Amino acid sequence: MMNRNTYLKLTGLEEARALLFERCASAKTGPLGTECIPLEQALGRTLARAATAGVSSPAFHGAAMDGIAVVAENTFGASERRPKELRLGQEAHWINTGRILPPGCNAVIMVENVISGPDRDYVSIEKAAFPWQNVRKLGEDMVATEILLAPGVLIGPYELGALAAAGVLRPEVFIRPRVAILPSGSELITLHEASPELLAAGEKLPEFNSLMLAALVREAGGEPQVMPIVPDDAAKIAEALRSAAQSDADLIVINAGSSAGSKDYTAAVIAELGELWLHGVAMMPGKPTAFGGIPGKDGRLKPVLGIPGYPVSAMLSFEQFGQPLLALWQKRSMPERPLELAVACQALPSRPGMEEFLRVKLGRVDEKLIAVPLPRGAGTVSSLSRADGIIRIPAQSEGFGAGATVPVRLIRGRDQIEKSLLIIGSHDNTLDLLDSFLRTRRPGHSLTSAHVGSLGGIMALKNGNCHLAGSHLLGADGLYNREAIAIHLRKQDNTEGARDAYGGMPVHLVRLADREQGLILSPGNPKKITSLADLQKPGVTFINRQRGSGTRVLLDSRLKELGINSDSIAGYEDEEYTHMNVAAAVLSGRATAGLGVKAAAQALGLDFVPVGVEEYDLLIPDRFFNDLRVQALLETIRSAEFKAAVFALGGYGIERTGDLVWSFAG
Amino acid sequence: MMNRNTYLKLTGLEEARALLFERCASAKTGPLGTECIPLEQALGRTLARAATAGVSSPAFHGAAMDGIAVVAENTFGASERRPKELRLGQEAHWINTGRILPPGCNAVIMVENVISGPDRDYVSIEKAAFPWQNVRKLGEDMVATEILLAPGVLIGPYELGALAAAGVLRPEVFIRPRVAILPSGSELITLHEASPELLAAGEKLPEFNSLMLAALVREAGGEPQVMPIVPDDAAKIAEALRSAAQSDADLIVINAGSSAGSKDYTAAVIAELGELWLHGVAMMPGKPTAFGGIPGKDGRLKPVLGIPGYPVSAMLSFEQFGQPLLALWQKRSMPERPLELAVACQALPSRPGMEEFLRVKLGRVDEKLIAVPLPRGAGTVSSLSRADGIIRIPAQSEGFGAGATVPVRLIRGRDQIEKSLLIIGSHDNTLDLLDSFLRTRRPGHSLTSAHVGSLGGIMALKNGNCHLAGSHLLGADGLYNREAIAIHLRKQDNTEGARDAYGGMPVHLVRLADREQGLILSPGNPKKITSLADLQKPGVTFINRQRGSGTRVLLDSRLKELGINSDSIAGYEDEEYTHMNVAAAVLSGRATAGLGVKAAAQALGLDFVPVGVEEYDLLIPDRFFNDLRVQALLETIRSAEFKAAVFALGGYGIERTGDLVWSFAG
Repeated sequence: MMNRNTYLKLTGLEEARALLFERCASAKTGPLGTECIPLEQALGRTLARAATAGVSSPAFHGAAMDGIAVVAENTFGASERRPKELRLGQEAHWINTGRILPPGCNAVIMVENVISGPDRDYVSIEKAAFPWQNVRKLGEDMVATEILLAPGVLIGPYELGALAAAGVLRPEVFIRPRVAILPSGSELITLHEASPELLAAGEKLPEFNSLMLAALVREAGGEPQVMPIVPDDAAKIAEALRSAAQSDADLIVINAGSSAGSKDYTAAVIAELGELWLHGVAMMPGKPTAFGGIPGKDGRLKPVLGIPGYPVSAMLSFEQFGQPLLALWQKRSMPERPLELAVACQALPSRPGMEEFLRVKLGRVDEKLIAVPLPRGAGTVSSLSRADGIIRIPAQSEGFGAGATVPVRLIRGRDQIEKSLLIIGSHDNTLDLLDSFLRTRRPGHSLTSAHVGSLGGIMALKNGNCHLAGSHLLGADGLYNREAIAIHLRKQDNTEGARDAYGGMPVHLVRLADREQGLILSPGNPKKITSLADLQKPGVTFINRQRGSGTRVLLDSRLKELGINSDSIAGYEDEEYTHMNVAAAVLSGRATAGLGVKAAAQALGLDFVPVGVEEYDLLIPDRFFNDLRVQALLETIRSAEFKAAVFALGGYGIERTGDLVWSFAG
Repeated sequence: MMNRNTYLKLTGLEEARALLFERCASAKTGPLGTECIPLEQALGRTLARAATAGVSSPAFHGAAMDGIAVVAENTFGASERRPKELRLGQEAHWINTGRILPPGCNAVIMVENVISGPDRDYVSIEKAAFPWQNVRKLGEDMVATEILLAPGVLIGPYELGALAAAGVLRPEVFIRPRVAILPSGSELITLHEASPELLAAGEKLPEFNSLMLAALVREAGGEPQVMPIVPDDAAKIAEALRSAAQSDADLIVINAGSSAGSKDYTAAVIAELGELWLHGVAMMPGKPTAFGGIPGKDGRLKPVLGIPGYPVSAMLSFEQFGQPLLALWQKRSMPERPLELAVACQALPSRPGMEEFLRVKLGRVDEKLIAVPLPRGAGTVSSLSRADGIIRIPAQSEGFGAGATVPVRLIRGRDQIEKSLLIIGSHDNTLDLLDSFLRTRRPGHSLTSAHVGSLGGIMALKNGNCHLAGSHLLGADGLYNREAIAIHLRKQDNTEGARDAYGGMPVHLVRLADREQGLILSPGNPKKITSLADLQKPGVTFINRQRGSGTRVLLDSRLKELGINSDSIAGYEDEEYTHMNVAAAVLSGRATAGLGVKAAAQALGLDFVPVGVEEYDLLIPDRFFNDLRVQALLETIRSAEFKAAVFALGGYGIERTGDLVWSFAG
């Protein structure tokens, strides 16, 4: 057996961060320096020292309006009945906004209230000026020596203006902390070496964490430097770390190799070169985080952060440790993501003892903010790019039940979330296409979709957890969706007890597309499958869709018609949640056949044997039908461009796309 | 009289913006192009086209854990009592996280659950593996051809990762709109030409709006180019605009000259060179906004935005028109500032017919978010850099009364506002110093101060509108603050009616500093003023502080002692709100003398004749005394560094700084 490390213990997240901060603030590591830079380059930097006004602004009493400058006391007594004449050049002086008042003047009369005389020597006024009217007084904005901006202030557009007005042309700011990023792993190749063929061969993975980490470093005001990939070799890792410690980097981030696997050398190498402060944090993803210090050029310890290799783990770990440290060094706090309360649309179980970071999609349905969980895997980087928010499930919690109110930190802006429509139900590729068209046609609008199958969508609609449901449920009546709607969304009197009382939900059924469903097969169809009956052949493995999905209902209905027992189909119990994942299972050889839409087969270059055409509809509650967001969506669905794009996917009928096909009174 | 334009009419803000959008979307102006750029440069750019996965990720079934890869079916039946042996290299294969599964394998058993045999040929397991356990399946994150990111998505760290994982190495993004910024005004000089002497002379003003505007352009994803300053000359403005229209700029911003003054040529020149679409918007600041289009190289109209010259007007106008236009061109929406409800701590009157943008400071006191207005002048750029939020008072409103609940858009982060202490009351320079020290010692903490005089502070405290009050009110008992506290914060039974019922507020009095108050005089004291009695001399003008301020109470008390009638003091009715503004009034010659602290006189190099030492205290309600923010503040006040800095200002006694001098039981 190979050598393996184990975590000595897992430390709680807050405790771990406090430890990192404490060690990095100690005399042995030392604080970051400051520099004075030209104001033109100061956007986004952090003030290191209070900025005091070098000059007063305005630097003189000036006109706040176009008009005449006067001595107010000379105008006293003027009225409509007894206008007062003022001699130009002596008692009155034409002046433009912003200009200095002539000596002795203490008021400006607006040009609109000045009557020019027959010659250019006199003007007359019908109203007295009071002292200091329409005058911007010296120091009205700021007075020399006044403290204008406190240290730790992030310099944005407004701060640039204040500094300029105060004559602070070279503000003192914290230096940008320099961060050396060392990707590690023998299996890694750079993005530009990564061809599709090389990736499919399975020995090599593209290295892109450094790209994301560099962006996080910039976000926190630091300056990233990405180093070459280091292989899984203790000596080479030690060499790379030692050389980074000798560089001018303020922080070293080594990505991957911090776990407890046989080739995870990070923690051991940090301990060997300097001090290991911590290994293992009770967070998920992100558990294999390690950090310590190794001596730099001046002999002081330079902090090293060892973060896990899975992209989601890497990001969350760096957000929890790296970004706050960079912010601390610049004496500013990282902006916290806004907190909202959301309702969990399904149960969110979690492992006690670990603080879990769950990525969710969000939608505002009626008054409730609904949270729909995304895949939890630490490798699914798309669960970050698709997330609207993150729910942190505390270490001592076993999670939340469906319907629980839970705090969520927003990744997207509130306005974006408020303007988004949440659709839950069956997965279809055209939903992503619809989102893209909607965003392009109506900037600001978007469609957020979560995939739980047709029936799951109808139940979510019933529970008020989404705006729309996508469904293709074949009923015993041979029609799509109507039976399921009539069963689940009808008014239910509570003869069987109050628990079942339900007022019914009027909904409209709008066709998204007609879809060709069929068997998705390996290229060339080596097993010669031509019908559902062939799924019983020896050596054939099927990949199924989950219970409650329309495709599963279609399959079971056809099997019943054909008198085929599902026990005779190998792999019937093996489920996937989307058409594309079914197609991927076939492509990888995991299964011989799966049932799904033609578009999925085409997308991956797989064979396809049609089984039938089905109707994929949007269920739109009557109370949302006139919502502007829904109207924008319908307008998009009905556009020629969208229909053409759906048609181009292959396997879709668009004759009835956008049609209101049925309305249900509830 | 000079030639003057007038606004034809003022257009409402929303209507004006809709007009700008409509004109800029028309065929005559045309949309922005797109470009494909290396992923490494894509941070902060906006996707122009949906990004679809070029490769599946993972591209193969891989191990999700370190351990052995197996065929799950071969492990069935293994148990603790009947462990199963697997032959290495045939039935079991050591595998590290992320690596491809050997052909046929469909599960991974964690290394912790693998027992190595006596030799290296066999391992044994005590538990069966189920199919696909610990396996990252092909396409688990994304499947080739799947839409990954919709158009209009802003590319952040997460999106970079998703694009990289999908093999999108050159995403198609909208080009950065290029914005030519033309500062105009004969009185303007560049920041680097602006010496304090030149500014004080009053003929020249430093041009810094372009610096702020360039930052706003960058914030909205555009690329600014600042052009040389154009003088107030119609021909030269026309020439500059014509040349900018021939350049590759997508938008031209001409700053200043858009008003209705005699030298405001912008609107007329736009009309002359092309089309003027609008002149005058019903917003304040920002009214003199104008826009139109002038022909570019290709003959199509290039939009020109004429924005007012006052810095606050320029920023707000560009935020309302320029930034949304740049966002629209990139098919994304500008992130809206978060909205909160705040309580107005004082009346906020506003002129009907104009939508007013009021800058406010904010503090969370008990449950209420309190808004304190900042100066309204369009020239006070510090009202932007000091603001925590902006209250928009609708055009049809006459404003809000004190205590009204009003929506406010946050400029600072919520967390920053929540951690800030709000102090209202008398102004003192040491408060700004205290804020600076607090922020440096305790990053994240801050002190927000609003200046309404000592009595105003006590009333704000009574009304629950602040955490702390700063006060130096001399009582008839010869002591500071105690009498005022006893009068205003004592329990008041409602014998005179329910309106006066008040439960009393226990407070603690902590000394901030002892202050030397005295007469602030022109350098060299030309009028030979040595006492308050000298304020009655002919030719002497006084500048007073506002009623309710401690300095005013001190003055009135001393005048009474000396038997001096305030009518005999010229300028007694002329009021300022801070010591620094009193000093500025003396420096500018507006007044001969004012009463204020020595520090203010010293800061501006003025003479000072001491009148007495007074006690400046912080009033801290008992319910906040143990608040962690207050404790951080007290710790800062008591630090040697802070005391030394206060002492260095001059005119302050620090012997009792930080002492708890009195407690009041309410």
